[in-house]
Amino acid sequence: MSTLPSPQSKTTATPASRRSRVKRVPDRGHYDADTIHAILDAAWLCHVGFIQDGQPVVIPTACWREGEHLYIHGSTKSRMALALAGGLPACVTVTLLDGLVLARSAFHHSMNYRSVVAFGRFEKLDDTAKIAALRTFTEHLAPGRWAEIRAPNKQEAKGTMVLRMPLDEASAKIRRGPPKDDEEDMTLPVWAGVLPLAQGYGTPEADPLLAPGTPLPAYLRALTRR
Amino acid sequence: MSTLPSPQSKTTATPASRRSRVKRVPDRGHYDADTIHAILDAAWLCHVGFIQDGQPVVIPTACWREGEHLYIHGSTKSRMALALAGGLPACVTVTLLDGLVLARSAFHHSMNYRSVVAFGRFEKLDDTAKIAALRTFTEHLAPGRWAEIRAPNKQEAKGTMVLRMPLDEASAKIRRGPPKDDEEDMTLPVWAGVLPLAQGYGTPEADPLLAPGTPLPAYLRALTRR
Repeated sequence: MSTLPSPQSKTTATPASRRSRVKRVPDRGHYDADTIHAILDAAWLCHVGFIQDGQPVVIPTACWREGEHLYIHGSTKSRMALALAGGLPACVTVTLLDGLVLARSAFHHSMNYRSVVAFGRFEKLDDTAKIAALRTFTEHLAPGRWAEIRAPNKQEAKGTMVLRMPLDEASAKIRRGPPKDDEEDMTLPVWAGVLPLAQGYGTPEADPLLAPGTPLPAYLRALTRR
Repeated sequence: MSTLPSPQSKTTATPASRRSRVKRVPDRGHYDADTIHAILDAAWLCHVGFIQDGQPVVIPTACWREGEHLYIHGSTKSRMALALAGGLPACVTVTLLDGLVLARSAFHHSMNYRSVVAFGRFEKLDDTAKIAALRTFTEHLAPGRWAEIRAPNKQEAKGTMVLRMPLDEASAKIRRGPPKDDEEDMTLPVWAGVLPLAQGYGTPEADPLLAPGTPLPAYLRALTRR
């Protein structure tokens, strides 16, 4: 959380639309690109909401950001990819949970988190843009990996759809810091504070079928040592 | 992941409805209660999808499970809580990311995850059920905490809504294990395997305003030592 820029330091310091304004606890809302980008860049996946047969559907999928767009990909047979490529209204939400906030009163228990909610419509990338985007995605997963792996062949590229949504109607919501108890509860003999939560790498697990002697590359050693 | 029961060991081994059937990579789909419950019980938050003014909206919120229901709560002023209490169709999705799957080919890169997608409508709990549910929620966050903290007073209870959705139209989707590369790529000199990801506790951060000498209780020491 220390890497986040100070909120509202930049460009879009006001919501782009009524629906993208944070209503509950509005002082947790942020609308500047730096804050929104930092949250998206720290995430591996998003939850995509769309409407199918009058029913809301929320599907988790890998995501990455480049410039002012959020990207996802999927099989050309995926019902979500097909639906979104048709230009349906969508809502994409990314949430990073940073801690459990334990207050002296049940009521003031909370969570520390950083989230982004983005409204918009996806567009499908053309073949050239698609391969470049998949490269960005792979490098988002493990910087340095693209140079090493076999690139998509024609068949694989044909079977993959890459979609992107502009981030022009996005908002961030952030809670950080200790609990906020009522004045009269401050002297209760109860431990209060934050249990931080963080997603970290475990020890890399080599494919059991890995050719003997294949070393773990430096870019992965670096990642998993952080 | 080792604590997961073996898939399809129980009751609902088939999807409850057409829309709750896993379509993409159907062998990753599970419909038994044990598998679905285990994923929900390991989560702190869910993403709730609903429709507002014809637009899909996806909002992250804390969740917990008891029996055959998924629970959420919110302020009685929250537009989401109010909308859901009205019985709107909803979709609740929980996703646990377990690792990045690094294949020899770009195409076969993947993620290991456990997710649940549940369709249904929420109902609002009455006042008595509400306090019991908030207790269950607090104990889900930190088992042992409810006995210690100040319980909600009348005003706080009045301002809090607890909602629950039946889990009778839910499905789980799970990917685990190493990458699955094409036969002809198996001899490429590229490290392949899984970078495990896990959410873990950091060192508890006491509220700066904590009364001096208030100890970290045993139930929190136990949690953060795991």
